[in-house]
Amino acid sequence: MSTAPAPTPAPAPRLFSFIAGNTGPWRVESMATIAGEPMAQAARIEVVTDACAFPNDASWLLRGITSNERYVERTEKDALVGKQEGLGRAHATCAALIPIRKTATWWALTQDERRHIFEAQSHHIQIGLQYLPAVARRLHHCRDLGPHEPFDFVTWFEYAPADQAAFEALLQALRTSPEWAYVDREIDIRMCLAAR
Amino acid sequence: MSTAPAPTPAPAPRLFSFIAGNTGPWRVESMATIAGEPMAQAARIEVVTDACAFPNDASWLLRGITSNERYVERTEKDALVGKQEGLGRAHATCAALIPIRKTATWWALTQDERRHIFEAQSHHIQIGLQYLPAVARRLHHCRDLGPHEPFDFVTWFEYAPADQAAFEALLQALRTSPEWAYVDREIDIRMCLAAR
Repeated sequence: MSTAPAPTPAPAPRLFSFIAGNTGPWRVESMATIAGEPMAQAARIEVVTDACAFPNDASWLLRGITSNERYVERTEKDALVGKQEGLGRAHATCAALIPIRKTATWWALTQDERRHIFEAQSHHIQIGLQYLPAVARRLHHCRDLGPHEPFDFVTWFEYAPADQAAFEALLQALRTSPEWAYVDREIDIRMCLAAR
Repeated sequence: MSTAPAPTPAPAPRLFSFIAGNTGPWRVESMATIAGEPMAQAARIEVVTDACAFPNDASWLLRGITSNERYVERTEKDALVGKQEGLGRAHATCAALIPIRKTATWWALTQDERRHIFEAQSHHIQIGLQYLPAVARRLHHCRDLGPHEPFDFVTWFEYAPADQAAFEALLQALRTSPEWAYVDREIDIRMCLAAR
């Protein structure tokens, strides 16, 4: 007697679109321009998987794709995986969408030079680890989606209202690190969940 | 007396499309499937900058984007830059277009694990260096263009007819390296310049 092979699970979505407009479950509480050119204000944010056409009533749309680790090493990865939690936790009703762009100088550095600034000088991974599992995050790469993207990365964070101060401390630690000398555009968009 | 500021040079193109059809300056001499699913045969290849609509008479179109170094360290970069020459040399009338895809296992490795296989075990950079300046190359990334790309990388090579044996030796060295255990699709397309 033969049994049918188990179906191959669909691959996890990698491409996400962040749509700013008047609909969507995330109500925008604040938008701050940390560096570079501002973005248009928005009332609501919706996150959709895969690419989507620009909605008629949207004020902007950002896209990003999850990808392989660029700096994280095995021991760091194991520490992160052991502590981190995923997006979509019921108590994590606060979110932040933070698109950033890095300078041409950063991108012209070699791998060892970027890793040295990222971790040896700036402790980017170690700082993030301190705020796990309170702050969940998903990093999306934009720079290699095409040659005309406005940002290099879009990071989406989720946390509970009680962890807001911890989230501010995380951002403060990163923004005062040597790595941030290479950030020339950054927008900090804060949201609360209006409805799932 | 004031002088006008020098105009900012346009950024170098990063996105390239490789169009297989019946037109274009590169005449296809052979197409070999090294691993995985074959591609449709083509008579000519044309390389265009930026994205383009799929031409009516094309048999396929591949896209790729140049990006920052993923493994190369400073001392290696300096050695490469000191020896390499660019594309478009008058004597380099042979070309190869080699799209490859790597396995999910490769992409799940951490940065230090991939670097270890790439260089400590496979000597990818040192092998390439041995064939400079004879073989000029441009590496294009595809994996982060979107979630549905058929390949992870497309590399374009140019060399003189007299350097064909050297080019074969370069490919042989890479294909027998530990890194190539993670390559699950590879097509080797060889061309001669019919006209610039």
